[in-house]
This record gives sequence, C-alpha cells and structure tokens, in this order.
Amino acid sequence: MIPKNHQYWMRKAIEQAKLGGTPFGAVIVNKEQQSVEAYNTTKQDGPVAHAEINAIQQLKCLDFTDSKSLTLFSTVEPCPMCMSAAVWAGIGKVVYGASIADASLFGSQINISCEEVAQKSWYSIALVPGVEREKCLELFDK
Amino acid sequence: MIPKNHQYWMRKAIEQAKLGGTPFGAVIVNKEQQSVEAYNTTKQDGPVAHAEINAIQQLKCLDFTDSKSLTLFSTVEPCPMCMSAAVWAGIGKVVYGASIADASLFGSQINISCEEVAQKSWYSIALVPGVEREKCLELFDK
Repeated sequence: MIPKNHQYWMRKAIEQAKLGGTPFGAVIVNKEQQSVEAYNTTKQDGPVAHAEINAIQQLKCLDFTDSKSLTLFSTVEPCPMCMSAAVWAGIGKVVYGASIADASLFGSQINISCEEVAQKSWYSIALVPGVEREKCLELFDK
Repeated sequence: MIPKNHQYWMRKAIEQAKLGGTPFGAVIVNKEQQSVEAYNTTKQDGPVAHAEINAIQQLKCLDFTDSKSLTLFSTVEPCPMCMSAAVWAGIGKVVYGASIADASLFGSQINISCEEVAQKSWYSIALVPGVEREKCLELFDK
C-alpha cells in the first residue's frame, strides 16, 4: 500500500483544485484513510463556498467518532472563515501548501493567519504549513 | 411606516433566534428594506450552519447591485467564521447585540473580535455593537 502521508493527500487536494479550475482544493481524512474532497465553488454557490467549507459540509459522509482524529488538507492556508469552521468542526490537524501571504499576491485576503485562529481557540489544533507549496503555488498561474 | 432602524431589525433577528431555539439569529437588509432571515441550525446541518452563514447563503434571494449597501444584523457578535464570511460577501455594515465576551460565559468561543477581522480586511466595514444587548443576552437564559 502506498504510504498515506502528507504529500499523498496534498496531491489529492491539488487534484481537487484543478478539477474546480481554481487554486483551492481541500481533503479531510479520517484514521482509516477515508476522505471527503472538495474544491472552491464560490462562482456558482456564493462567498461561503470555499474548498475547506465545502469539505467540512461533507463531514456527515465520513466515518469517525472523535473529530480530533480528522486531518484537513488544503492547497492554501485556510482563511479565518475556513480555519474557524475547522475549529467549530473539532478537526485535530490542518495541513496546507501555500500561505495566505502567498495567496495575497494574487487577490485580496483577510490577514489573519490560521495559526492565530488556532491560538485563540479553546483547543489545540496541530498545523503543518508548506506541504507541496511549490505545486500549490503553480495553481495560481492559470 | 414604522422607521426601519437598528432596533427594529435587531428584534427581527431576536425573533429568528427564538424560532430556532438558540441564542443566534441573523437578518440581512438591503437599501429597499427587504431582508433575508435565518437562525442557527448547527444541530441539524453541521458546524458551519451559524445564523449569519445561513443568512449569507440566502443572499441570492435578495435584490442588490452593490453588496456594500447591505447590513447584517446578528443577535451575537459574529465569530471569525461568520465575520470573515461577511467580508467575503462584501457586506457594508454589521450590527450586533451581545458580544463574543458575553457569549463566552455560556460556551466556548474563538477569541477574535469582529473588529479585528474588519481591521485586517481589504475594505472598510462599519460595526455597530450593543444594539438591544440586554434582549439578546436573555436569549442565553433558556
């Protein structure tokens, strides 16, 4: 079996971004290495439909007893809307590729890092930045 | 015609909160004093379904050309998920009753004020705190 590591799942998120035709893809993975996957659909579905939100909306399709066992992979550092949604969902780990600072070179951003949201929340969320960052940055070139 | 002031619309948001059986109700109003209204449905619909998000999801039902002309009324200061969603939606003014500090006496909160989200965004959003705060606080007593 291929090891289901950070790179593996980030590439799944990158595939989602490409499917949606935007730089933004997200995957949530459980302990059994099952996943829900989504891309940004704001053009069709309005401003809330970021990739991470669309993935969190599918959590009812994923089997888990403790939400802290879930990991969210996102091609771009979650904005404060999406990172706060991850907190409310009780997700235990967030892995991302490009940063909000990277993304701000291509469009307006809310300048609150996902680290700040994590620090100001009531439980500890692990953060893993910069996974496949170069490949995630390439998504902005289209 | 009854003046459509902040108190009027906040009472509509309070009615929504009561309808939903939680402290959280929200209304978005356009220049013509038309509105979309929503309450918190997280028990049924998952962690993203805060009142403000549910209202923003209905924006396609509201007539407007410039989203800056819209005002969001919320019984409780929007959390960073909801305030960031208001930013992404381009809403021009946010009016709220109870604060995040008030709400944190009753449950876990992410301690980032909507003022901080507004300050770190790329456009200016007007904030009006404390409207009908006592009536909004009473919603937590049930």
